[in-house]
Amino acid sequence: MSLTAEQLGEVIRAGVPMAEDIGFTVDEAGPGFARARLVFSERLIRPGGTLSGPVQMALADAAMYAAVMASIGQVEMAVTSNLSINFLEKPAPADLIAEATVLRRGRRIAFCEVRLLSPGEADGEEVLVAHVTGSYALPRQR
Amino acid sequence: MSLTAEQLGEVIRAGVPMAEDIGFTVDEAGPGFARARLVFSERLIRPGGTLSGPVQMALADAAMYAAVMASIGQVEMAVTSNLSINFLEKPAPADLIAEATVLRRGRRIAFCEVRLLSPGEADGEEVLVAHVTGSYALPRQR
Amino acid sequence: MSLTAEQLGEVIRAGVPMAEDIGFTVDEAGPGFARARLVFSERLIRPGGTLSGPVQMALADAAMYAAVMASIGQVEMAVTSNLSINFLEKPAPADLIAEATVLRRGRRIAFCEVRLLSPGEADGEEVLVAHVTGSYALPRQR
Amino acid sequence: MSLTAEQLGEVIRAGVPMAEDIGFTVDEAGPGFARARLVFSERLIRPGGTLSGPVQMALADAAMYAAVMASIGQVEMAVTSNLSINFLEKPAPADLIAEATVLRRGRRIAFCEVRLLSPGEADGEEVLVAHVTGSYALPRQR
Repeated sequence: MSLTAEQLGEVIRAGVPMAEDIGFTVDEAGPGFARARLVFSERLIRPGGTLSGPVQMALADAAMYAAVMASIGQVEMAVTSNLSINFLEKPAPADLIAEATVLRRGRRIAFCEVRLLSPGEADGEEVLVAHVTGSYALPRQR
Repeated sequence: MSLTAEQLGEVIRAGVPMAEDIGFTVDEAGPGFARARLVFSERLIRPGGTLSGPVQMALADAAMYAAVMASIGQVEMAVTSNLSINFLEKPAPADLIAEATVLRRGRRIAFCEVRLLSPGEADGEEVLVAHVTGSYALPRQR
Repeated sequence: MSLTAEQLGEVIRAGVPMAEDIGFTVDEAGPGFARARLVFSERLIRPGGTLSGPVQMALADAAMYAAVMASIGQVEMAVTSNLSINFLEKPAPADLIAEATVLRRGRRIAFCEVRLLSPGEADGEEVLVAHVTGSYALPRQR
Repeated sequence: MSLTAEQLGEVIRAGVPMAEDIGFTVDEAGPGFARARLVFSERLIRPGGTLSGPVQMALADAAMYAAVMASIGQVEMAVTSNLSINFLEKPAPADLIAEATVLRRGRRIAFCEVRLLSPGEADGEEVLVAHVTGSYALPRQR
């Protein structure tokens, strides 16, 4: 049974405390894909006006989880087994977007890539601010 | 000018919003080393009673920062450039310890390792629950 | 001065001994991009008929180097500072393709992604067999 | 049935072509641990006299494999699922040592750390030239 973007957001906010803190929402989801959002809040910024690293990691992790559940349905026992993030640019003080893709879904592991995007100076421009890869350990199939 | 463990905790809690959320404190610090702590709170757990991944990443990131500043003094412009975490075991619902070591400090980059430790079943036992490596981009030396 | 795909292959084979061992060639290159190839040879396979992990890493590393030089010209002092590979599928006993992209080129670091592709069962199909991210430390600009 | 250091070296040289190219040998092994060696040869160096990145990755990968087999016995179907290397210093033109440790051995995955060490300027000194983490997918237990 597939979940809508809205349901994915709810399930994850209910299950991961930090997802709620960052105003995590899912804008769009489909098989192996989710586009999610951190809703900007002054509370999340470091001095200097930028979103902190841990906040970006929390968004990436939740977006991966959304992409995995968009593929295989609701899995409460899936757990991140590895996450590797490269910070490339300072994000703007604005909503941060995460585009998560499942690159390979095996029986035991789903391997994902996430791109964190922040508004650029030009209208409608999106800048890649961080690149993330991660793997999810999937629960044993019934 | 070297900072005490207590000062390191204060500087980081003041600069990284999520460090405050996790009750980040530094127990011990010396050149290239910091032992830090997430103070357990019900607010940080996922259903199932375990500390979430993002919370563990936030602790590891802050502990690396402490180890870097314990080496080179207060550096407000140091930023994490890469962080890679492997989750090995579920942490207990208890304080989580981070032991961060600077493995190499170059002119431009400090490379660190962090071990996250949680109380085991035996008295005084510590279980390795996550392993982290990361690099910090250091500000240009004056 | 930009290098052709053929020149990139020559420079890298001359500079990295293992690139020569794997018959490294560059098929196509442009700013921030290179499509390179390991030429299949029985000598490179493990029992079971698959290309070994180290051989795949050697290809990915050389392809990143090609993409970096395709962006900024010949740089003999650029060195890989980090490489992270996730092995997703066994490659076929055939030429292995690497598509390397520079995702961000800073003053000091170029951050790259490489996808390793192997022929699938359908005609013309390419299967993602490994995903790689890496960063290159760039020489100081003159 | 546990394997001696010598047997581990043989099994790996026979199974991984690149291990043979680098003169891979195991000096010492015990449960969850292996100390292995790349035997220096002019053939392996890049212009500038340093051992290339791919050669270091090949050594690290083979040393992890040795540490895993030193823990659980000969496993021909174990495959590296992830390897992440950070290059810290240029190695000397000399034998390169790898100390590999299994940090956690689960049912399905063994997670390892490898430190690559090269002779320093002082007598008997060893310099950390690269740090590696990796995970091995273990075959299904009978």
